[in-house]
Amino acid sequence: MKITNLQVIPLAFPDPPLLNSFGVHAPFALRTLVKITVDEGLTGVGETAGGEQMVRTLEGARGHLIGEDPYQLNRIRLKIGNPRTYGPIEMACLDIVGKATGRPVCDLLGGAVRDRVPFSAYLFYKLADANGRGAVTTAEAMLDEAKEFVRRYGFKSLKVKGGVYPPEVDIRALRLMREHFGAAYELRVDPNCAWSAETSIRVCRALMDLDMEYVEDPTESMVGMARVRQTTGMLLATNHWRGNSEQIPAAVAAGAVDVVLSDVHYWGGLTGCIRLAEVCQTFGLGVGMHSNSHLGVSLAAMVHVAAVIPNLLHNCDTHYPWLEEDIIAGPGFCFAEGSLAVPTGPGLGVELDEARVERYADYYRNRAPRARDDSSEMMKRDPRWLPLRPRW
Amino acid sequence: MKITNLQVIPLAFPDPPLLNSFGVHAPFALRTLVKITVDEGLTGVGETAGGEQMVRTLEGARGHLIGEDPYQLNRIRLKIGNPRTYGPIEMACLDIVGKATGRPVCDLLGGAVRDRVPFSAYLFYKLADANGRGAVTTAEAMLDEAKEFVRRYGFKSLKVKGGVYPPEVDIRALRLMREHFGAAYELRVDPNCAWSAETSIRVCRALMDLDMEYVEDPTESMVGMARVRQTTGMLLATNHWRGNSEQIPAAVAAGAVDVVLSDVHYWGGLTGCIRLAEVCQTFGLGVGMHSNSHLGVSLAAMVHVAAVIPNLLHNCDTHYPWLEEDIIAGPGFCFAEGSLAVPTGPGLGVELDEARVERYADYYRNRAPRARDDSSEMMKRDPRWLPLRPRW
Repeated sequence: MKITNLQVIPLAFPDPPLLNSFGVHAPFALRTLVKITVDEGLTGVGETAGGEQMVRTLEGARGHLIGEDPYQLNRIRLKIGNPRTYGPIEMACLDIVGKATGRPVCDLLGGAVRDRVPFSAYLFYKLADANGRGAVTTAEAMLDEAKEFVRRYGFKSLKVKGGVYPPEVDIRALRLMREHFGAAYELRVDPNCAWSAETSIRVCRALMDLDMEYVEDPTESMVGMARVRQTTGMLLATNHWRGNSEQIPAAVAAGAVDVVLSDVHYWGGLTGCIRLAEVCQTFGLGVGMHSNSHLGVSLAAMVHVAAVIPNLLHNCDTHYPWLEEDIIAGPGFCFAEGSLAVPTGPGLGVELDEARVERYADYYRNRAPRARDDSSEMMKRDPRWLPLRPRW
Repeated sequence: MKITNLQVIPLAFPDPPLLNSFGVHAPFALRTLVKITVDEGLTGVGETAGGEQMVRTLEGARGHLIGEDPYQLNRIRLKIGNPRTYGPIEMACLDIVGKATGRPVCDLLGGAVRDRVPFSAYLFYKLADANGRGAVTTAEAMLDEAKEFVRRYGFKSLKVKGGVYPPEVDIRALRLMREHFGAAYELRVDPNCAWSAETSIRVCRALMDLDMEYVEDPTESMVGMARVRQTTGMLLATNHWRGNSEQIPAAVAAGAVDVVLSDVHYWGGLTGCIRLAEVCQTFGLGVGMHSNSHLGVSLAAMVHVAAVIPNLLHNCDTHYPWLEEDIIAGPGFCFAEGSLAVPTGPGLGVELDEARVERYADYYRNRAPRARDDSSEMMKRDPRWLPLRPRW
């Protein structure tokens, strides 16, 4: 089985004005689709972050792929070198091998240890939409959003994307949620490093009685994280290493984190996440899963890999509920009690709706920026706003 | 695809009187073969350590296996619980999946990054055989053995199983080898914890100018290893954790080792060795591969897994050259320039010679002890000998 073609398809899809400490989501979110074809006629798909740089990098990988056998993931990984470039390519190769063997991708990775993968509600403050509706700018509005996510999808963990308003707003939102939902729901907050270490210490103290699942990246530096963790005893998670495993020994030595958030797009694909989970297991660290705005191909890959990692005990993040329309054929993924069933069809178990792919490809060509830039988007709306981190 | 049967076949095969710090190899070495059958008619084989306890443990795993799909390695691993019990079972399951997909086992593990796997000469002091011949009890005789191994198999690394005679003998043997073979050969010595930490420090100092690849387990305790390493700067390897990954964080914190020796029989099969290698990579540790007396099924598994681990840069240990006759059909594995070609047939790529299996099964039933005990074997020959560790 030999790879005969790699197609790189940049996409843009409508995205609401979600707020975070970097700024605000632009009207279009960017993703990149890869399609790999082999001589036996099978095609595999993969998905990753969007924008021109990713497109160019993936195009540059074509020479490493043509003629390779999609089973030879170690060779392909070494030849490509960059774990982010490799991520979507591995996804597509596993999709092909799954189709060739009639097996779901999870079976190619040692098999699922759970039938359903639980996800977390990813709750954002947001600006009003073009019609002036839907703004979420207070703790009370955040609680309403949480209620809506729980009602519609049944999520059992609630993640507040904080760091947008002063920490008191996040603290109040979390307190309202704990009061409303009771002890059975997991609460987490991710201010994306909006807080200094000192502010983080004070916020973590204020959150202590809420039995938080964890606080994600309250502050930027690893030594700051270690100070917060060791001063307050708050459980801390991080997504900021983004595939840089060099950070792990340093963080272990510093005592900087409790939970590492994996991501198939950053950590060298699905197999990279499996290996990361083993490192975490060996060093007594927990494992969760990070998400950016994404489509159903990435979601399928996330579900397959989450299903096979025994120690992935924190519910996965996903932006999927914010997506208006997926590119996969049929009704798309449907959350029940906050979780998704592991696809059982061959490969990733999803099929593209080519008309929707073409629509989002057209959006990319004609309507979207070439790179994600939440800060510029925010400064367009408020010229006095600056991307300060820490802001408090 | 469902597992319908597990056969556990204890074997014993003739073994020369090889010496080590635990005593001497008995006339028969023990191994256990497993055969797993699936409803589609395929059979996979695995091999591991021998003796009654292993047989009973593997028999006890039958209930966890019957009805399982051999792709579901994560489920099977969790159900079995013990990484040593799981090792040969995974080997057999991968053999089946490889046969079902027409792929060599290495392809199921991401594919080979090398076509040939280099091994090390495993050089032993030994007692005379039943005919009073072949004793190797001096540094000069050890050099002759090394010459013979290099002539016949082309090994480029030479490992002295030391700790049998006073350290001066090992030092002299290594010095003679360096003088004879020159700088292009790797030298290692494994006294199996025969030395105290102080003796280890003195021996390592005496070996410093020989540019040793590493010294394996000079002394028993982790703090002792750390003292030796930090006092002398000698590169140290260990095989003594034997699948206990709890030791890794402690050893990293203590600065106790440079190289961890993997082993498919101890570390949770081939996938366990791959995960171990990732942990080592993340923490800047090297990876090698340990060996006990073994047959060709284990050797096939070792070659497949060594072929897929990019950072396995130390040549693998193997007792294979000490084996008179393998149980695999055909001429058996044939070293060229110290290395073996990765089998390309489906699964492990080896087929059993059932007549030889039956002969070794008969030896086990009628001529061999129920457990390996090198110390008792030594005390039979020399009642004043005691299994002292450290001895020097």
